[in-house]
Amino acid sequence: MLNLYFAPGSCALASVIALEESGLDYEARRINLASGEQRSPEYLAVNPKGRVPALVTDKGVVTENVAILGYVAQIAPAACLAPLDDPFEFARMQAFNSYLASTVHVNHAHKGRGYRWTDDAAAIEAMKVKVPQTMSESFALIEEKMLEGPWVMGEQYTVADGYLFTLASWLPGDGVDRTQFEKVSAHHARMLERPAVQRAVALAQV
Amino acid sequence: MLNLYFAPGSCALASVIALEESGLDYEARRINLASGEQRSPEYLAVNPKGRVPALVTDKGVVTENVAILGYVAQIAPAACLAPLDDPFEFARMQAFNSYLASTVHVNHAHKGRGYRWTDDAAAIEAMKVKVPQTMSESFALIEEKMLEGPWVMGEQYTVADGYLFTLASWLPGDGVDRTQFEKVSAHHARMLERPAVQRAVALAQV
Ligand SMILES: N[C@@H](CCC(=O)N[C@@H](CS)C(=O)NCC(=O)O)C(=O)O
Ligand SMILES: N[C@@H](CCC(=O)N[C@@H](CS)C(=O)NCC(=O)O)C(=O)O
Repeated sequence: MLNLYFAPGSCALASVIALEESGLDYEARRINLASGEQRSPEYLAVNPKGRVPALVTDKGVVTENVAILGYVAQIAPAACLAPLDDPFEFARMQAFNSYLASTVHVNHAHKGRGYRWTDDAAAIEAMKVKVPQTMSESFALIEEKMLEGPWVMGEQYTVADGYLFTLASWLPGDGVDRTQFEKVSAHHARMLERPAVQRAVALAQV
Repeated sequence: MLNLYFAPGSCALASVIALEESGLDYEARRINLASGEQRSPEYLAVNPKGRVPALVTDKGVVTENVAILGYVAQIAPAACLAPLDDPFEFARMQAFNSYLASTVHVNHAHKGRGYRWTDDAAAIEAMKVKVPQTMSESFALIEEKMLEGPWVMGEQYTVADGYLFTLASWLPGDGVDRTQFEKVSAHHARMLERPAVQRAVALAQV
């Protein structure tokens, strides 16, 4: 049995989408970030990093979207959620996901989580100012150099699509007009037509 | 033929170590970050993100340490650089690597690359102040909850070891006394005994 810890509006939506697409049996467990539940002793016993997502399996816990997405694709091969038989294509997918985790998500976090990197109130405010620019620059790169279309990896839908969809859903809140990115916008609309994405959004966006 | 673009003192050391351990034939190509070579048209044609590492293969380019490390392990199975036959253990390794990329490396980057997230000179200075604390907190978590010993994943040496070694080598420069982390320090010393690590350090640290 799989249990996924997630929070509404968070990056964990990427893992929820992957699980909904996978056909695997899982339970979604909601964490209330606003009340600090991620730092409760109970949750820290699951994920000592105090973050979502965390996937609890019979063998142990997997954290980090990049790892969870690859894992879900691997244990549900029939769902064809990654190029599992081609190490180069798999690496290309992982590179895309790792860029989202290490650069794009981090850009976004400077809006609401600046206190991670400074205790200076003025600096925390200053960090918020550049978020529209850094997010725009990242999405311009995705639009022009990364998103092949119709899906991230080309013809094959993969777990990278749910991750891109998740971070692209943050753009309006980050002060970035998504419609300036034609391929990203078309991808977003295409995602919303998928029943698994609709179920995930209903579950994780509220 | 494989070509790895790297820079001295950078996170690319993790990929250099993986390649040295793999036994694969590759060429290391040096990029001068101080002179801005990563933003030259020639290098942007290789990696439009303007960062190292980037691994050029016959099939195309793989960027991001997390992806390169997994790829090297997969195409050199005889070197046993990852738990390739166990999706859960592979995911656990990827989670470790993704934590280094998305949290620990990012903490470190607030010392020298604060301009990525703000144009405010005072805020850039303010960001530097917390680096010793954020790096210490990350390494305390690695020490207490992640590093199994003797290697990151336990008995099996993996590509995660070279990545941990690389980021741990930044601690003194980040104002953190590495000796306070006993397991991390012992791991560091153990790594330095490996011929592949010695070759990688000789190549990539100068
Ligand atoms: N690198 C991690 C990042 C996880 C992360 O930062 N999650 C956020 C939600 S988007 C969180 O749990 N924040 C709670 C907090 O910072 O207290 C991943 O990709 O899974
Ligand atoms: N997420 C990337 C980060 C790559 C990265 O930031 N590399 C740094 C060196 S440690 C770089 O190329 N910096 C050049 C610059 O910022 O101009 C990875 O893990 O490969």
